Amino acid sequence: MSKFWSPFVNDLVPYVPGEQPKLAKLAKLNTNENPYGPSPKAIAAMQAELNDSLRLYPDPNGERLKQAVADYYGVQANQVFLGNGSDEVLAHAFHGLFQHGQPLLFPDISYSFYPVYCGLYGIPHEAIELDSQFQIRIEDYARPNGGIVFPNPNAPTGCLLPLAAIERLLQANTDSVVLVDEAYIDFGGETAITLVDRYPNLLVTQTLSKSRSLAGLRVGLAVGHPDLIEALERIKNSFNSYPLDRLAIAGGAAAFEDREHFEQTRKAVIASRESVVAGLQQLGFEVLSSAANFVFARHPQRDAAELAQRLREQGVIVRHFKQARIAQFLRISIGTPEQNQALLDGLSSLV
Amino acid sequence: MSKFWSPFVNDLVPYVPGEQPKLAKLAKLNTNENPYGPSPKAIAAMQAELNDSLRLYPDPNGERLKQAVADYYGVQANQVFLGNGSDEVLAHAFHGLFQHGQPLLFPDISYSFYPVYCGLYGIPHEAIELDSQFQIRIEDYARPNGGIVFPNPNAPTGCLLPLAAIERLLQANTDSVVLVDEAYIDFGGETAITLVDRYPNLLVTQTLSKSRSLAGLRVGLAVGHPDLIEALERIKNSFNSYPLDRLAIAGGAAAFEDREHFEQTRKAVIASRESVVAGLQQLGFEVLSSAANFVFARHPQRDAAELAQRLREQGVIVRHFKQARIAQFLRISIGTPEQNQALLDGLSSLV
Repeated sequence: MSKFWSPFVNDLVPYVPGEQPKLAKLAKLNTNENPYGPSPKAIAAMQAELNDSLRLYPDPNGERLKQAVADYYGVQANQVFLGNGSDEVLAHAFHGLFQHGQPLLFPDISYSFYPVYCGLYGIPHEAIELDSQFQIRIEDYARPNGGIVFPNPNAPTGCLLPLAAIERLLQANTDSVVLVDEAYIDFGGETAITLVDRYPNLLVTQTLSKSRSLAGLRVGLAVGHPDLIEALERIKNSFNSYPLDRLAIAGGAAAFEDREHFEQTRKAVIASRESVVAGLQQLGFEVLSSAANFVFARHPQRDAAELAQRLREQGVIVRHFKQARIAQFLRISIGTPEQNQALLDGLSSLV
Repeated sequence: MSKFWSPFVNDLVPYVPGEQPKLAKLAKLNTNENPYGPSPKAIAAMQAELNDSLRLYPDPNGERLKQAVADYYGVQANQVFLGNGSDEVLAHAFHGLFQHGQPLLFPDISYSFYPVYCGLYGIPHEAIELDSQFQIRIEDYARPNGGIVFPNPNAPTGCLLPLAAIERLLQANTDSVVLVDEAYIDFGGETAITLVDRYPNLLVTQTLSKSRSLAGLRVGLAVGHPDLIEALERIKNSFNSYPLDRLAIAGGAAAFEDREHFEQTRKAVIASRESVVAGLQQLGFEVLSSAANFVFARHPQRDAAELAQRLREQGVIVRHFKQARIAQFLRISIGTPEQNQALLDGLSSLV
């Protein structure tokens, strides 16, 4: 605390990202990264930018990447917004679309960055309880609001809300923006981007950090009606003209263009997830049905915090949230087959 | 305009960056990029990150780069803040350090992003007139304020405020933050970072886009008292945990470590500037004394907008601001010797 700070800074409660351990030997199953590398074509595209042209500013609009995303999803480039990871895209969306008198609504168990953004931009908000099975009940969102946001599949539960339910929500909620945060959609859901042309208040965000294996490159995006995109562009152009560097624009575009690598790796992750779920169930874990590249599991007889600590001693890091309702769960990213085996071996000695 | 926008978005007037032309043949002297490429060691460091490790998140704190900056300037790593270009660093500083009741002060002719940040964060501000020679008079800043910010050297004038004057300003202004934006300092000034240990309200920002030839990589930084840095970290961690990608952290650190390439290229730019100044003066231009990698010049008989247009037709792009007091000036970035010659040849046919 300092007299030089803008007063609101005193009350900020920042987000705490999952640990990035320095030991390379650990099985790092705590931040939902992809166990497989990015498209070799993305690497090659970045390679082609790795030269003296780095002295020049990038394209402030990232047109090459916008067009690749637009082509992939069959939308127009002016329906696409780009950012320095989907966290930046979400921040701009909270700032530009959710500052209204009514509270923003999001699930009580959800991405823990949402209340942080609300703190940063002074946005009133209400947490809506998931049901006892940790599912979103869309009826609960039928109340006055300044916006609705949820991850789909939800994090850290992995539970998917079907597209038909999202459409019912959009039909019932026409006066504020519904933001569907699809960080994990490629591991088992259907994107709501197919609905943006019919619902002008739908904004869908995605990231290249998960299914496209580029967490280290920082690229995220949003797709929606051009009017919503314009709000984001206005904020972006009042904040930082060039959020994406030359390598990110080139690598991101090539990642979207390489459909084969994308399909291959996401299917491998999905298959691994199914075998991790089976292995955990065999060890007595209750595992929520996951459409993501992680699972959310609890053991009826073992304390989750302690399990996480013991696993760490065995070189396996998973994520544990000290939070009401989910304090007995572990969130476990799907790793390589070897990492998944290390996880199951470790747990079998502990339960 | 849309009912879905947060109301302030209607009033935003975004920053307009200099044009990034698609034609490679143009002599691009409009956005103050470095005519020389980045350090080959920076390229090599990025090369070493261009592999499957991009599937993993970067270090959210960018410790490797923080340490390189700290070593270079002889400060502690907790006195260094990193961002996605210095524009992002400035945005967080405006947000976290300038939201007070009193107006923020900055020169009337200055970096045109400052009033844009004020619009984004609702910061009251006052433009203080440069004197008739386009110099900052520090006496004019002795008035109640919620902060003071100026580029040094100033942009787009290139004029330098000596370090002794900055120290007098700091001694007179102890109750609010003084932000010295040193985007261009390496081309002819002395950094105020040497003062941060004595003045807890001094924040200095720098960029790797100019003297370190990495505009395409998006890396900026701030150095100041740990209390000021903490405000920036709180905001950063409430906005985006990972603003710098793996390539930017590695490349930025190597760029700071390669002092030889840095010294060589910045001296070459300074030498070129002096010959461009002489050439312009020979053509009858009045050129403000520049400590930057650009010059600000006017011709007593020729209209600046028209000169810019004619130069463009000859393949040379410079920047012209349609703004009171400076509408008859051109801002001309220092290019390679060939580009500088093309500029002077072009102008000699026009004046």
